[in-house]
Amino acid sequence: MDKKPIILVTNDDGIEAQGIQFLTSVMEQFGEVYVVAPQQHQSGMSHAITIQVPLRLRKHTETENLHIYSVSGTPVDCVKFAMDRILPNHKADLIVSGINHGSNSANSAIYSGTVACVREGAINNIPSIAFSSLDYAPVVNFTPYKSYIEKIVKTVLQQGLEKHVFLNVNFPRPENPIKGMKVCKQADGMWVERFAENKDPLGRTYFWLTGGFENEEKENSETDEWCLDHNIISIVPLKVESTDFQAINALQSLNE
Amino acid sequence: MDKKPIILVTNDDGIEAQGIQFLTSVMEQFGEVYVVAPQQHQSGMSHAITIQVPLRLRKHTETENLHIYSVSGTPVDCVKFAMDRILPNHKADLIVSGINHGSNSANSAIYSGTVACVREGAINNIPSIAFSSLDYAPVVNFTPYKSYIEKIVKTVLQQGLEKHVFLNVNFPRPENPIKGMKVCKQADGMWVERFAENKDPLGRTYFWLTGGFENEEKENSETDEWCLDHNIISIVPLKVESTDFQAINALQSLNE
Repeated sequence: MDKKPIILVTNDDGIEAQGIQFLTSVMEQFGEVYVVAPQQHQSGMSHAITIQVPLRLRKHTETENLHIYSVSGTPVDCVKFAMDRILPNHKADLIVSGINHGSNSANSAIYSGTVACVREGAINNIPSIAFSSLDYAPVVNFTPYKSYIEKIVKTVLQQGLEKHVFLNVNFPRPENPIKGMKVCKQADGMWVERFAENKDPLGRTYFWLTGGFENEEKENSETDEWCLDHNIISIVPLKVESTDFQAINALQSLNE
Repeated sequence: MDKKPIILVTNDDGIEAQGIQFLTSVMEQFGEVYVVAPQQHQSGMSHAITIQVPLRLRKHTETENLHIYSVSGTPVDCVKFAMDRILPNHKADLIVSGINHGSNSANSAIYSGTVACVREGAINNIPSIAFSSLDYAPVVNFTPYKSYIEKIVKTVLQQGLEKHVFLNVNFPRPENPIKGMKVCKQADGMWVERFAENKDPLGRTYFWLTGGFENEEKENSETDEWCLDHNIISIVPLKVESTDFQAINALQSLNE
């Protein structure tokens, strides 16, 4: 009998989130599951790591097939910590992150801790998949996503992913019937931020980040944003490599 | 007479760092300078944004050509805040970040707040350049870098950069004679982390992130790591787009 795959489950909403609990329950059929997630909510933490302060570890559950830990740091800290201190032989066969409560489509993937965890997996040559739902609520009916998660996980466990490539999966809101699943590109666009100004109880000014996403390619059916607008699950393969090779030629005048 | 360029200067070492003060002094010859930097040290914060708590603003200096502010958030918060609340018409002609006290070559660029600031600039279609020194010390003789910064800035102000492309510049340690400057690719490799374990004064265990970079392409003269090993300044053009288009084809079996 083949050895069971070692699967690391993490997220950025924190160990208590419903999304990671649902994802963990789906993953148990596929192997030995290690959950290592942040102790606190860490949305918007991107690929941040904790350098200035130490980290604390807490053990929650330890059975033969399920091991649950939390770490006091960022999402990426959790992946790094799992690899150094928790996983057998410092290695997982698969990393899954989420299910995030909120979309990580288009360039939200840059700001997302959920996606950063699987970028970190890809840097370490581990097949890695991020799952997010467009539903921001703390309690979500994730059941309609289950069969799709299973299909994606089976495919990646069987055929792997190219070196330094990882998947960013986004689900439409679960109350709408899902129309299918599509491998596609990340939509081009940007978050246009506003900082709302207010006064605290002592009369001092503070600012709070808010804003909205502006899609620069609304009618392109090859993008994640289009899929999600049409109740289709988007699967975007992303890569770690980000050198722009064309620009190397355009900037030759700087060589000396 | 042409209107002076509007230049935003930021960093991740914080408003008090010598690196940003040196960079600001070099930039004043090129236009009207706005410095908007974190109030505290923010190394390793990557592209993190502050969602859970509000931000505070402090004004330090206000003259005709030099405006200095600090923000209580992350490096990317500073760029977003500057665009929404500080820059004339919400726009800069150039964003520069640094000079970082410490290398941001290879995939350190992923973890770096210094580099994230200029990625944020590129998302917003502003030509943007990150500068970092291999010297980690809090006091560095940056003077040998000055003429190179001027050449890079002049070139980018004149010819711009392609949409969503930004530059990651790393300088060798300043005590070694600089052998030249080269536009090149980011080296492939990874940080292999260890978490050092210790006990606090109350006897509770804590862990602290440490580790080292493992270059996977040591003899490739087209990489930033090779340049820096040979006392050559590396200039890596990076892009925001990170879809892996080859993988879209490889994963067609997931479409349904």
